[in-house]
This record gives sequence, C-alpha cells and structure tokens, in this order.
Amino acid sequence: MSDLSRIGVAIDSALLKQFDELIGRRGYTNRSEAFRDLIRDQLIETAAELPDTVVVGTVTLVYDHHVRMLSERLTEMQHQAFHNVLSTLHVHLDHDHCLEVLVLKGRASAVRKMAEALISTKGVKHGRLTITTSGAGL
Amino acid sequence: MSDLSRIGVAIDSALLKQFDELIGRRGYTNRSEAFRDLIRDQLIETAAELPDTVVVGTVTLVYDHHVRMLSERLTEMQHQAFHNVLSTLHVHLDHDHCLEVLVLKGRASAVRKMAEALISTKGVKHGRLTITTSGAGL
Amino acid sequence: MSDLSRIGVAIDSALLKQFDELIGRRGYTNRSEAFRDLIRDQLIETAAELPDTVVVGTVTLVYDHHVRMLSERLTEMQHQAFHNVLSTLHVHLDHDHCLEVLVLKGRASAVRKMAEALISTKGVKHGRLTITTSGAGL
Amino acid sequence: MSDLSRIGVAIDSALLKQFDELIGRRGYTNRSEAFRDLIRDQLIETAAELPDTVVVGTVTLVYDHHVRMLSERLTEMQHQAFHNVLSTLHVHLDHDHCLEVLVLKGRASAVRKMAEALISTKGVKHGRLTITTSGAGL
Repeated sequence: MSDLSRIGVAIDSALLKQFDELIGRRGYTNRSEAFRDLIRDQLIETAAELPDTVVVGTVTLVYDHHVRMLSERLTEMQHQAFHNVLSTLHVHLDHDHCLEVLVLKGRASAVRKMAEALISTKGVKHGRLTITTSGAGL
Repeated sequence: MSDLSRIGVAIDSALLKQFDELIGRRGYTNRSEAFRDLIRDQLIETAAELPDTVVVGTVTLVYDHHVRMLSERLTEMQHQAFHNVLSTLHVHLDHDHCLEVLVLKGRASAVRKMAEALISTKGVKHGRLTITTSGAGL
Repeated sequence: MSDLSRIGVAIDSALLKQFDELIGRRGYTNRSEAFRDLIRDQLIETAAELPDTVVVGTVTLVYDHHVRMLSERLTEMQHQAFHNVLSTLHVHLDHDHCLEVLVLKGRASAVRKMAEALISTKGVKHGRLTITTSGAGL
Repeated sequence: MSDLSRIGVAIDSALLKQFDELIGRRGYTNRSEAFRDLIRDQLIETAAELPDTVVVGTVTLVYDHHVRMLSERLTEMQHQAFHNVLSTLHVHLDHDHCLEVLVLKGRASAVRKMAEALISTKGVKHGRLTITTSGAGL
C-alpha cells in the first residue's frame, strides 16, 4: 500500500460518463478504487486457474440437518483436512435447514477438491465455492 | 424430502459413462444425488435473477485492517442493515489482512445492493457474493 | 471516439506491475486500451441484465445433422423470428456434426428467449449465448 | 447416438415439479433431453479447462471499422493462425460498427490465446469467447 503510482488513462468521455454512473450505483466514491478493484478481480481470477497458487476459499453449504449422520460426515471430512480449514460459521436458517460457511486455505487444486467433496455429499442441497487470496501483494 | 418420485431418463450410453466418471471425480457416490444437485443449482440461479426472490447470500471480503476506520465503516454498514445480516465470521489471514464472511438474507435486490456497497468500500481488496436460498422447497 | 478524457488513476506500484504483466500476456500493447475494455465489459454485462436493453447476441449451436427434421425445425424457428436474426454461419465440423452461429438483435429478453428455444431443441447437443451490444456509445 | 441407456433417477416430487416448470419455460418438450443437455454442458465446461483438449470456440468481436488499419490487423492475425480458423461471419451493425464471429478449432490453450489476442486489439470494443466441442462422443 505504501508505494503509489499515478498513471494517466485515456478514455472516451461518453464511456467515462457511463462508467462513473455504474460505479456510483455500486457505491464507489472514488474512481481509482473502482479501477483497483477491477484489476484485483482479474488478477485473482487468473491466478486461481493455476492449480498450485495458494488461495483462500469460502464454501457455502445449505443442508437439511435431519439427514441422518450428515453433520457427522461433514465434520469428519473437515477433520481429515483440518490443516486446510481455517474456520467455519454455522447459521440455522429455518426449522430444517442449516447454512455452513467454511474458510479454506491451500493450493487451488486442494481447495477445489475439498469443496467438491463437501458439495457432493448426500443431503447437501446447494453448495458454492468462492476463491479469493490472502490479499498479500494486491 | 418425504415424497419421492422415480423417473426414467434415456441417455446415450457413451454420454452416461462420461457423466459417471465426472461425478465420480467430484465425489458423488450416487447418481441421483448428482442429478438433484444439477437441478437445484439451475433453480437457484434462475430464481436469484428475480429481484424479489428471498435469498441467502454470503459475502466474502478481504481487507487490510490497517486502513484507518475501515473496520468501523464496515461494522457501521452492517448495523444500518442489521435485519439483513444473519451472522459474520472473521479470520486473521496474516499480519495485515482479514477475511470476513457475512451471511445475508433478504430480497435478492437488497442482498446485492448491500454486497456491492461492502465490496466497493475503500480498503476492501477483494469481495464476492454467492447467492443461495434457505433450501426450503428444494 | 472523438472526445477523449485523460484521467489520473492512483494504483499501488506492486499492483500495477502485476496488472501490466497480465495484460501483456493477453496481448495488450496499450494500458489505456486494457482499462477501456474492462469498463466496456462491465457496462455490457450490467446492461444485459435489464430485459429491455437492445442487445446483439451470438448463439453457438452444435448439432447432429442426421437427426430427422432438425435442420428444418431450426430454420423454421429462425423464420418465425426473422426480424431478430441478422445472419447465420454454418460449419461442417465432422461427418456428423454441424456448428451454427446465429447473430441475433433485439430486446435482451427476446434474444434470451429465442436462444433458449434453439438450445433446448432435441438434437442440439450444446448451445451457448453470448451477449454484446451494437457498440454505439461505448 | 445409437446405444441408449435407460436409467432411473429418484427426485423429491416438489423438486421435480419445479424442474419441469423451469425446462418448460426454456422450451424443452422432453425431460430426458433437458438432463442430457445439463450433462453435456458440465462435460464441455470441465474438458475446456484442460489446455490440451481439442475444442471449437466462437469469438464474437464488435469493432469500429473506421479505426485505421484495424480490419487489416484482424485479418492478418487470422492468416497467421489460419489452420485454427474454420470460418468467419461479418455483420454491419450500424454506420460505424461491425460484428465479426470467428469459429476457431484447436487445443484449448491455442484457442484461448488467439481469442485474447483478437479481443485485446486496439479498436475492438468488446469481445467474448465461447467454448464448445465438435460434439463427437457427446
């Protein structure tokens, strides 16, 4: 964050106006911040395609806690890969359904494999993996 | 979950073989479960496009906690919309960086708007929204 | 394209270096052009979410031309909505398979509906819709 | 296509009802066809992640034909990789803008690289790559 560059960008005025409106609607108060976010997003997406990049991933799972042995199975899977699981969050959505968010860290390939195993477990109704990074260097 | 239908599906054998290999690699032990997951994923994706569907969303944020007043600002934004925030999880990724996961619930348009506001906050280096549902009816 | 603005963007030097490497690998020789492409992509994606925006879409279809009456059915569907179909391209991929690209123009909702109808036709093995715009104003 | 398997799939009745409604809206008249399309889409997406898979790709480009030497540059790039370019389609969108669709065939990595080079060319306002396959084996 310390060493800041100031660059000039040439943009057609009509295009710039539309961009300013878009980022205004999204809540940006600072155009440079919007550019930096676009850049970081591209870098993270590209890096996450390489299996050996160390990434942080959050897995969102929705499941019915009445399914027999399901919580036990999910917990067991996490313990087998405990060094990849940083933390978890649990929310009781309604009488039947739980939402669990797991924060994983590791090589992109390992994070993906674990997310797929959790999502494919019987009784898990929906699951999604979001990949980000530790933020270092961005 | 109680009322189960059994349907017949006609698939070219070569295609079925490739599908079985794919879901095997993803960890499925049961072909019906893989079909159900494909169906739920399509339904959630389609429903989330309508602004009035009630959804559950998880927002993953990575930020540098040294940025002045950033934590305060993020906390303040959450309190202003506290009825949409079910829970949050915080992980210290390294000396500088925090990861925060927020579980939001509300109309898809409100969940999206709040996620955009959080992600666009200065100092937040990366953010992503994942949309799912409470699981009821799926 | 006539009226050009020149804006200043503040970026951490380490982040800028990574961005320059990324766009270099993608073939950009000009940093402003990369920024403009990021902006246009965001604008088109956001606009295409609104059902009434006029968009241009290309639909890619792969199908087996041996399936009885399939070509006739696809042609018939195009003629029923001929005012939305600007042009088509046909490639014989191998002994069995054809690839057809259709360029559609119309309201986003109409373009999506027609693409879904084509893709869901029996015998069409794979289909995808790409949405862009006429480029005016970008 | 010749050798057909008939498999049984167990699905909660409420979930099946929602799926039937969804595919009905998308134009499917046959549930097995909808399942096959879901399967093929997953297989193509997974295969396209491997750099050595032979894929077919369509690149959609929108550009302003007034930009000096742009058409020449795009044509030149295509000739340099002519063995990867199966065919192209050109549409005059309005007074200024052209849409060009290129059908590429080759290893996924080569198709991606060429698409990126075309999209990053100065004067190309928007570009997107869609990856599919020759359909053989699906």
